[in-house]
Amino acid sequence: MNYRIDIQYDGTRYNGWQKQKNTDQTIQGKIESVLSRMVEMPVEIQGAGRTDAGVHALGQVASVHLDSTRSPEEIRCYLNHYLPEDIGILSVRPAAERFHARLNAVGKQYDYRIATDPALHVFDRKYLYPFTEPLDLAAMKAAAGYLTGTHDFQSFCARKMKKSTVRQLDSIVFTELPGELCISYQGNGFLYNMVRILTGTLLEVGTKKRSPESIPAIFASGIRENAGFTAPAQGLVLRKVIYSA
Amino acid sequence: MNYRIDIQYDGTRYNGWQKQKNTDQTIQGKIESVLSRMVEMPVEIQGAGRTDAGVHALGQVASVHLDSTRSPEEIRCYLNHYLPEDIGILSVRPAAERFHARLNAVGKQYDYRIATDPALHVFDRKYLYPFTEPLDLAAMKAAAGYLTGTHDFQSFCARKMKKSTVRQLDSIVFTELPGELCISYQGNGFLYNMVRILTGTLLEVGTKKRSPESIPAIFASGIRENAGFTAPAQGLVLRKVIYSA
Repeated sequence: MNYRIDIQYDGTRYNGWQKQKNTDQTIQGKIESVLSRMVEMPVEIQGAGRTDAGVHALGQVASVHLDSTRSPEEIRCYLNHYLPEDIGILSVRPAAERFHARLNAVGKQYDYRIATDPALHVFDRKYLYPFTEPLDLAAMKAAAGYLTGTHDFQSFCARKMKKSTVRQLDSIVFTELPGELCISYQGNGFLYNMVRILTGTLLEVGTKKRSPESIPAIFASGIRENAGFTAPAQGLVLRKVIYSA
Repeated sequence: MNYRIDIQYDGTRYNGWQKQKNTDQTIQGKIESVLSRMVEMPVEIQGAGRTDAGVHALGQVASVHLDSTRSPEEIRCYLNHYLPEDIGILSVRPAAERFHARLNAVGKQYDYRIATDPALHVFDRKYLYPFTEPLDLAAMKAAAGYLTGTHDFQSFCARKMKKSTVRQLDSIVFTELPGELCISYQGNGFLYNMVRILTGTLLEVGTKKRSPESIPAIFASGIRENAGFTAPAQGLVLRKVIYSA
């Protein structure tokens, strides 16, 4: 049976989603290890978004084929019982036999949370990036206008890619909350560190270190160093994976 | 000048609000030490609620007389700059000369947060008490009916008191949220560990270890051991201090 699993995690302690040879501190590794123990055979799960080390998720989605007599709710309970408290399984549901969490995803939404007044964020301080310099939001919105659309995002990717680096960035939405600026990105796919570099670039625009009009030249160059700094992982959360109906 | 200071804190790392001789890990101690440094003389602040070790606050209030040329907003910034990140000063405001945060308080609201499904509380897990046994909410509400009102709460106090232990408990409100049961207590004053013992007693009613009708006998006995267990500090938060207009 194929299953869809919805997951949230506090990524602080982990080396990201994706299983790696040299560490067992990955979200994928933790979940696979509990599932393998449950069905007494090796299990491989597919995650929709390969979040980086330290990045969080409110709505990560994974798919997995399992041969189990347990009900979906029993599988969820088993997972939550054995997983550490910073990984939570929100739901386990039967899925179409060919459902693949990453290949079937048509979009993702990431939120980058900036604490403009960290004193108001005592309880969620580990999930925001404290940044107290004044920000020119109008300039940031103008820059966002240049960033959205279909572009080659090579300059906003921390790794040289062999495959295409063209992505469609549908929207960048700024939400002002008490002591917080939340930047939400929605697109059809994101490259390695892309949201964090976009955020760093927007913050440099907001602090007038660069102009909104400088964005097209960053795209044209294809050179990572021409974009802004990589905002820290702690402020980033994978909010939602989007599938077509 | 007299000031009212509104404060929130994550109490996890602290030995409670109140300054103590044998530890400098108290909220009051931390704030006094920064203020004393600012005005270059010893400062004493009065907090409205003496929260226990490990208890949090969303709306603690303190009063303090300060001789400073700084504006209230400058005092707030100074405090937030030097305080650790788990203590946040929400506001500093000039207050009437005779305003005293504890003596003038007419009521307080404490919330006790229970994680009935901890997997849904990955991000705020340190601020809820995980308790996954099924709860009979109707029985808990019936018990709350016996607990509210004006009573001698000696049985619900972890310390023998010389002064009166009569308090008025105005209301106990249960709010069911996803994966959470929040119990809100409002009253004119709370004794040492009182909210945590009330919560432990309600949880024992909810799990049918005792009946709602057993409550009057607990009051009548005046014996701490006849009430329920002391629920852990981590789920308790001082939400609000109430002053008359």
